[in-house]
Amino acid sequence: MLCHMNGIMFYPLLEEAGDFINSSVRGKKLIICIGLFSVEYLGRSSSNLGLGERVLMVKEDGSVLVHRRVGYEPVNWQPAGCIIRCGVRDGKLLLLSERRRPKEFLKVVFDKVYLITSTSLVDEARFEIGPVENEFYDLLMAHPEYIEEGLRIVSRQKSMPSGIPDFTGKDSKGNYVIIEVKRSMAGVDSVKQLDRYMKSQRGHFRGILCAPSITKSALLILKKKGYDFRRLNLKALSSLVAFKPYEETLDRHLEEGGS
Amino acid sequence: MLCHMNGIMFYPLLEEAGDFINSSVRGKKLIICIGLFSVEYLGRSSSNLGLGERVLMVKEDGSVLVHRRVGYEPVNWQPAGCIIRCGVRDGKLLLLSERRRPKEFLKVVFDKVYLITSTSLVDEARFEIGPVENEFYDLLMAHPEYIEEGLRIVSRQKSMPSGIPDFTGKDSKGNYVIIEVKRSMAGVDSVKQLDRYMKSQRGHFRGILCAPSITKSALLILKKKGYDFRRLNLKALSSLVAFKPYEETLDRHLEEGGS
Repeated sequence: MLCHMNGIMFYPLLEEAGDFINSSVRGKKLIICIGLFSVEYLGRSSSNLGLGERVLMVKEDGSVLVHRRVGYEPVNWQPAGCIIRCGVRDGKLLLLSERRRPKEFLKVVFDKVYLITSTSLVDEARFEIGPVENEFYDLLMAHPEYIEEGLRIVSRQKSMPSGIPDFTGKDSKGNYVIIEVKRSMAGVDSVKQLDRYMKSQRGHFRGILCAPSITKSALLILKKKGYDFRRLNLKALSSLVAFKPYEETLDRHLEEGGS
Repeated sequence: MLCHMNGIMFYPLLEEAGDFINSSVRGKKLIICIGLFSVEYLGRSSSNLGLGERVLMVKEDGSVLVHRRVGYEPVNWQPAGCIIRCGVRDGKLLLLSERRRPKEFLKVVFDKVYLITSTSLVDEARFEIGPVENEFYDLLMAHPEYIEEGLRIVSRQKSMPSGIPDFTGKDSKGNYVIIEVKRSMAGVDSVKQLDRYMKSQRGHFRGILCAPSITKSALLILKKKGYDFRRLNLKALSSLVAFKPYEETLDRHLEEGGS
């Protein structure tokens, strides 16, 4: 993995900066520009921001952000899919970002460009909400009520001839249960997996598939097989994660770095 | 006005990048860093983002943003007031951002830093929602119903001995009206201004102060004097602004720049 810097310019002429932006937009690069500029927005509403030093970011999908000195929110932004054009007009560098539906314009007028860089980022990682994998099963083990009220866990990752179900347990009515848990949306494969465990069992077992969400087709098959879906509230589960490891890391750092 | 670049580093060692970040945080600079890193968040919820190339921005007020290749929204963020610490641990550069209330941690773990820069931005401009000044009065002239239903404008910026009120008009009941309009919150000064115009008039006139909002003390005096406040819906008014000038600018640019 290597970050391919398309280039970087310090205090470029406005014409140079304009050419740089246009070629970076064509090359679908991420552009970061620090400069002195004003911003106008016109669309569902309208806004004006006078001259000041700010950061402009244009992403490869055509989304645009203007960030000021402070505050986590951009002062102006446009979502992906904008058409971005740039050129010098009357001694200023004009960047126009046009959104087609709904019709919206963002107009950035540069007096000066201090720094401009563009780059292609390689980033295939998935953004996962909820605890990390090992914590996740620990939390459910300690709090089976997040799977189903009244559930008690009997075994975790118990080896069966047909595989290793996440949990086995006993429900509030005393039924034995086999539980397959997914951290993201459950699909038909998840139902098949649960079905394999269930078929290898003798005696009466309930089957539970527990996940934050489930596809329509998976839910259909699940119900046909007579198993239950239990929606997992990842956000609530996350709130149970202990802060301790973070605080320790920070404290350790503060101690060591305090010299 | 000049943008003071604190410095910039390309492909620094992680130790160098860590020192750079710590000194920039102490100096209350805006930091932009392009690198290969993973992110963990823990707070009201929790999230994990595996290794990938991204942009990290830390603002002078301690707000933190992580931006991926695409999408206008940051994948992770923390608001102003975070405590930011940075240091190398086990061969990785660790950046911890701690929010006190509610307790939240953002942990950024760098494998590589490609580019890092920090700067102090000078930006005193006010962010104004609504049409620019000249358009603003044109729009109200053409759409007096945004001031009061049934109102007709008789004169605009008519010189009086006591000054120049924005509009005079006739209301739905045939009363003559003097109207003072403000583009932002009206204060006691605005009431005094309207009062001057009213006092210089003979005959029966209604007084209207029209603004997006008004201070409590101004409203009190206004009512005591027997004048009316009319709330201006800036967003609705903005939606009336024509796209034409923007489209023309873009078209002109596309034609000229199409070579």
